[in-house]
Amino acid sequence: MSRGKVVLAYSGGLDTSCILRWLLDQNYEVICYMANIGQDEDFEAARRKAEQIGASQVVIEDLREIFVKEYVWPAIQAGLLYESRYLLGTSLARPCISVGLITAAKKYNALYISHGATGKGNDQVRFELSCYSLWPDVKIIAPWRIKEFTSRFQGRQDLIKYASLNNIPVPVTPKAPWSMDANLMHVSYESGILENPNNEPPHDLFHMTQDLAKTPNEPFKLSIEFCQGLPVKVITQDAQVFDKPLEMFTYLNQIAGKHGIGRIDIVENRFIGLKSRGVYETPAGHILHVAHTDLEVFCLDKEVYRVKQNLKEKLSDFVYNGFWFSPEGEYVRKCIALAEETVTGKVNMEVYKGNVVVLGRWSPVSLYNEELVSMDKHSEFSPSDATGFINIQAIRLKEYHRFQKQQNK
Amino acid sequence: MSRGKVVLAYSGGLDTSCILRWLLDQNYEVICYMANIGQDEDFEAARRKAEQIGASQVVIEDLREIFVKEYVWPAIQAGLLYESRYLLGTSLARPCISVGLITAAKKYNALYISHGATGKGNDQVRFELSCYSLWPDVKIIAPWRIKEFTSRFQGRQDLIKYASLNNIPVPVTPKAPWSMDANLMHVSYESGILENPNNEPPHDLFHMTQDLAKTPNEPFKLSIEFCQGLPVKVITQDAQVFDKPLEMFTYLNQIAGKHGIGRIDIVENRFIGLKSRGVYETPAGHILHVAHTDLEVFCLDKEVYRVKQNLKEKLSDFVYNGFWFSPEGEYVRKCIALAEETVTGKVNMEVYKGNVVVLGRWSPVSLYNEELVSMDKHSEFSPSDATGFINIQAIRLKEYHRFQKQQNK
Amino acid sequence: MSRGKVVLAYSGGLDTSCILRWLLDQNYEVICYMANIGQDEDFEAARRKAEQIGASQVVIEDLREIFVKEYVWPAIQAGLLYESRYLLGTSLARPCISVGLITAAKKYNALYISHGATGKGNDQVRFELSCYSLWPDVKIIAPWRIKEFTSRFQGRQDLIKYASLNNIPVPVTPKAPWSMDANLMHVSYESGILENPNNEPPHDLFHMTQDLAKTPNEPFKLSIEFCQGLPVKVITQDAQVFDKPLEMFTYLNQIAGKHGIGRIDIVENRFIGLKSRGVYETPAGHILHVAHTDLEVFCLDKEVYRVKQNLKEKLSDFVYNGFWFSPEGEYVRKCIALAEETVTGKVNMEVYKGNVVVLGRWSPVSLYNEELVSMDKHSEFSPSDATGFINIQAIRLKEYHRFQKQQNK
Amino acid sequence: MSRGKVVLAYSGGLDTSCILRWLLDQNYEVICYMANIGQDEDFEAARRKAEQIGASQVVIEDLREIFVKEYVWPAIQAGLLYESRYLLGTSLARPCISVGLITAAKKYNALYISHGATGKGNDQVRFELSCYSLWPDVKIIAPWRIKEFTSRFQGRQDLIKYASLNNIPVPVTPKAPWSMDANLMHVSYESGILENPNNEPPHDLFHMTQDLAKTPNEPFKLSIEFCQGLPVKVITQDAQVFDKPLEMFTYLNQIAGKHGIGRIDIVENRFIGLKSRGVYETPAGHILHVAHTDLEVFCLDKEVYRVKQNLKEKLSDFVYNGFWFSPEGEYVRKCIALAEETVTGKVNMEVYKGNVVVLGRWSPVSLYNEELVSMDKHSEFSPSDATGFINIQAIRLKEYHRFQKQQNK
Repeated sequence: MSRGKVVLAYSGGLDTSCILRWLLDQNYEVICYMANIGQDEDFEAARRKAEQIGASQVVIEDLREIFVKEYVWPAIQAGLLYESRYLLGTSLARPCISVGLITAAKKYNALYISHGATGKGNDQVRFELSCYSLWPDVKIIAPWRIKEFTSRFQGRQDLIKYASLNNIPVPVTPKAPWSMDANLMHVSYESGILENPNNEPPHDLFHMTQDLAKTPNEPFKLSIEFCQGLPVKVITQDAQVFDKPLEMFTYLNQIAGKHGIGRIDIVENRFIGLKSRGVYETPAGHILHVAHTDLEVFCLDKEVYRVKQNLKEKLSDFVYNGFWFSPEGEYVRKCIALAEETVTGKVNMEVYKGNVVVLGRWSPVSLYNEELVSMDKHSEFSPSDATGFINIQAIRLKEYHRFQKQQNK
Repeated sequence: MSRGKVVLAYSGGLDTSCILRWLLDQNYEVICYMANIGQDEDFEAARRKAEQIGASQVVIEDLREIFVKEYVWPAIQAGLLYESRYLLGTSLARPCISVGLITAAKKYNALYISHGATGKGNDQVRFELSCYSLWPDVKIIAPWRIKEFTSRFQGRQDLIKYASLNNIPVPVTPKAPWSMDANLMHVSYESGILENPNNEPPHDLFHMTQDLAKTPNEPFKLSIEFCQGLPVKVITQDAQVFDKPLEMFTYLNQIAGKHGIGRIDIVENRFIGLKSRGVYETPAGHILHVAHTDLEVFCLDKEVYRVKQNLKEKLSDFVYNGFWFSPEGEYVRKCIALAEETVTGKVNMEVYKGNVVVLGRWSPVSLYNEELVSMDKHSEFSPSDATGFINIQAIRLKEYHRFQKQQNK
Repeated sequence: MSRGKVVLAYSGGLDTSCILRWLLDQNYEVICYMANIGQDEDFEAARRKAEQIGASQVVIEDLREIFVKEYVWPAIQAGLLYESRYLLGTSLARPCISVGLITAAKKYNALYISHGATGKGNDQVRFELSCYSLWPDVKIIAPWRIKEFTSRFQGRQDLIKYASLNNIPVPVTPKAPWSMDANLMHVSYESGILENPNNEPPHDLFHMTQDLAKTPNEPFKLSIEFCQGLPVKVITQDAQVFDKPLEMFTYLNQIAGKHGIGRIDIVENRFIGLKSRGVYETPAGHILHVAHTDLEVFCLDKEVYRVKQNLKEKLSDFVYNGFWFSPEGEYVRKCIALAEETVTGKVNMEVYKGNVVVLGRWSPVSLYNEELVSMDKHSEFSPSDATGFINIQAIRLKEYHRFQKQQNK
Repeated sequence: MSRGKVVLAYSGGLDTSCILRWLLDQNYEVICYMANIGQDEDFEAARRKAEQIGASQVVIEDLREIFVKEYVWPAIQAGLLYESRYLLGTSLARPCISVGLITAAKKYNALYISHGATGKGNDQVRFELSCYSLWPDVKIIAPWRIKEFTSRFQGRQDLIKYASLNNIPVPVTPKAPWSMDANLMHVSYESGILENPNNEPPHDLFHMTQDLAKTPNEPFKLSIEFCQGLPVKVITQDAQVFDKPLEMFTYLNQIAGKHGIGRIDIVENRFIGLKSRGVYETPAGHILHVAHTDLEVFCLDKEVYRVKQNLKEKLSDFVYNGFWFSPEGEYVRKCIALAEETVTGKVNMEVYKGNVVVLGRWSPVSLYNEELVSMDKHSEFSPSDATGFINIQAIRLKEYHRFQKQQNK
């Protein structure tokens, strides 16, 4: 008798195919769920594979538009950056996919969600916290944390053997000596030979960005327009215009990728307290981040900017740790959106040989006052005021000096 | 009768030459002080000029070594970055020069310091707060904030006229339509045509960095070693080794400059509340910042890193605003140095076409544990622990879900 | 000929009466503005006095309701507290009065605002920043910072002499050896004998609160209800109910004052960098702060609470420094109000001998889950999850231990 | 055959007595460890009880001096306060006891630590994280999270039955309808009837503090001296002097308890995400916290104080959550101690009817400058400087006003 229905986050790969089979062995009915968030995948082949293995249902959903509008856009608006460098490409995809999983579970009356994320990683946390937030009663089956499963499948060879025995097609090309995860925003690489943080990443690693040596020898100019902190238009030097989120983002990936933009190689702190090395390429995300950062300082009041930056630091951690759906995640996103109400304008830039060069910026409503700051005009500014300003600031410093002398007596 | 001795921060240019003359007109005795902090300057020509105008003394001091070791190095160690982008090249030079000014003033029994910084800028604040911190009794003469001076010299033409009348040599080449400030760490450009934030900076602006189009077609590899967060050695692909601060920094400026590294074009918030546009080139500073950032996340405990980053944000503002010498500046620098005690190791990188590419990093004492993080080994890690970890994190999220339902009833 | 109209913040006291006369001497036309923000004052006597001295107009405005609703209530909602102790009674009144001043100025076509705040204090900053924010073109006349004024009036005796000469009634009772400022929220005392921070405040200092020795020997119970972080109702043990802001606040002042609640004696850091000693009594403010703090932790999600507390720290400084009306002040108030949307419920308390004792709290929508936290029920909680939670948290600590050993080798 | 040696944190109560017996049943050899951290306990009776049940060894250690000097003192120095109110009495005791447990385990070659803390609480986390930090290889046995144990002992009745069967003396007095935890610093009460956050705590709850109604009718004066942020001396109105940490703390507990000082009734957020209600009495801790807070603002530079306060907030969370021994805990304690180097002086105060009234403060090296702040002296202060100070601060506000008008057009 069936133990119930499971919605499995299915990728079509060896791992989740074996998990599918194993769940069936455990007498679950399995619905495979695949989200298209822009990864390079033959979804129909994966569907056939899942059906052949025994999935009672295969759901393939195109979440690309939603992913860009509801996850990537707010991240750009907030300026999210984890530990000074990581644009959170994977972290943003997980809550997006989780909504799909939970929606499918409710639709098909499944009580369980299962996934192939491993026990040392961040993704298990992100998937599960998102799911619990969305539907507290859901039950999660995480095979890589279940003893029966992990003792049976101790390495890749065990999976291949099991696949062969169960007529699951085994990949003919040998696995790359690293693992990767791809979506519209980025491809990430980790594990295998990358685990040694001193190993240089191989040149054939990258998928979205061209090697610098092979990028065009001419720079390419484009402008990005933002409204309330959100990207609304891309205009290129050859007069192309993109103003739909998915189109804009896809175009920026293409042009930035062609110019070798957005690669990083970092060590990061995982939520569970391990340090891990990751290599990422985030072409469109990188160019949008640079443009947004530029416009934000241009438009925001100095002190509002500081409060908002502080909130951004917190939100970056929340999102990385899997708390996109959480009281604090929702609250801080609302606060940041409030600050961004005045981040509206255009940034002109040039992409070239891996560089995003800002050339200028303009806003209909900036706090920048050319008249006031000009060295050639006094405008309303009275220079003698600065004397008082400095003298008052100096009071505390002079007192400290007095104090130090007093102490040293 | 003389009103007393003034130490004037002298640059040899038109402004401070006129100020020198004007101070003499006001019956001050003037000692000209020039700090060599790496700017491109004919110091002996400047000395002759000052003497000819009437300086009673010209002091020229080579502060380059001190600038690198006592100002740039701690800034790299702390990871200072103002408003996410500016490496603080000018902000760091001002307190360094101020020590020189005050030392000279005390040596020559001068009671006054004078400078040519304008009334809308940051530098007046930095100079004066530093001076007051070092010597609370000093008196500052800031001609650009004195009515008699500013009403007489309303524009450059007035200065030129005054110079001609007073036999002060006038520059023969016309002034660039922007102003610049240079030191070993960076050159900054602002004002004039740059005041329109939408104007693209002209190509002939830059002094330290090559245009990307003219940079070498081959990448160049080098390693930078840090000890306790401070740079200690540079090793290049052609086996050159630099291990003295000034040499290291000079070499990095040269190699990074050759590869077009470290240009930014930003709008920033000045201390006095104006937004201004600045273009900066900081070749060695940029490469060191990238290397240090990489090693820091690699070496520091996750939570210590977060505390330290928070302190870094504060210190960046303190330094930008002129509070290098201040209770808070000194305190936070000490705290950061404490955190950095374990930031020791080597970063391998490649410079190429404006990019600093990190290739790997190594530390004798890192918290990175390849064994533990490896996907291929269970090591001491028990995957089932992650289940409990996630479930406990989920309690709060589930409660929030319950609460929202309750609220919506 | 008149130099124009001035709106003077008039108190009826010696200082502002002399300023009124002095402004008239300077050929200004002077409109006296008095805000009733709850201070104990004979407004009509003050009106007659101002008219007699020569004010062309005397405006007396009852701002008590506005003060409570638009300034005190948001401060309670935010939990504002300066340097851990000061409830900001004066800081909140200044922007409130400034609105009155600017409104009067616009109504009577006055271009100037004048006030009697001194040059070392916070209030000059608060008044003027508020006025400039509300009307950037206004001109401020601050006699205590004008040389002609301060050299003429070097001490109180000069003011008394000037008053006598100009038929300004001089107070018959000798001035207390301290200065005080009163409004509905608090009375503050500083200067004079209080300037020595080691001097005990005299027992006859206080106006709003009873000495502990004279407070009732029976505790008094009352409940305070909040909606979205704002006080909405007070219910007393003798079944009195107050639900209008001004009434509630007035009642709480009376009952808390009677029980000796809300006195503090502190040293604080002024905006301009001086340390000063102040003694404050804030009866209603104190009891509301205690009640709100209690309900807030009860209702808010743990992490939202932390973000909000951080915002509160910032806002406390903004308000103290005079930035109630500012981009950052408005922004942070909006963010805090967002967080407080769920702070709704009731706190039961007892006032007794200077103490506010919380007895219990209740909320219709709290995140507190008695079932879940109960030691007697397992509910949905699985104790074994805690093992995983702890073990994962321990990873980082174990690594650090390993690291320290490695370092010490 | 024995499964090995366990060091059990033994209290002498029913729970840990049953755990002792149960561990013996499981074939462990058990060493009972009792730390005297000031709780009211008949240690020798507990020893006999443990020996009678079967402990192979009973270790009783007096940690009171260590507890005060190494845990309470740094907490006072840092100003630790969890969620604005809780002085962390239990949180501080746990790492102190853990050192004792680990030391005993190493001495007696035990590989296991066991404790009676429950699975929903904070103490399990604090004990275990402390133990893992001190000795990563230790194994923890937490019976209240072990299924065999929890299914056998579902309630207190099961424990009593088991005790009777095993000749374990059962308490004759009925258990109070709440649980309590006591040490030198505080007694905490939770659970049972207190779980309803709206239930008023019963009057017979408290142990260390007198009911306000029964406190003396006369105030009592005393002074507390600090050196570098640490308490060093208490001087009373009747000329008693205490200058040894344990004596001082014990005396302050007695005098503050007599005057009813230090009770709070709060809801707090546990680390594991539950909200719980706790009632605490912390007499000496409260008075020291008030005194230290007063002296700190008096002595510290304004900006250093702000940095330090921020660190204090973080450390309060770290300590509450069990990270006393951790990279971040140690780092932040060091930073705070650096700041406190100048917090030296004396606070005069009065205890009376639950109130700690500060009467004055003095420091040999304070930044407070009576001369400078005095309203009666100009000293070095030039009032006109304040005009410039304000005008410069206003630039940003005026720009914002301009901007808002521009936006509304």
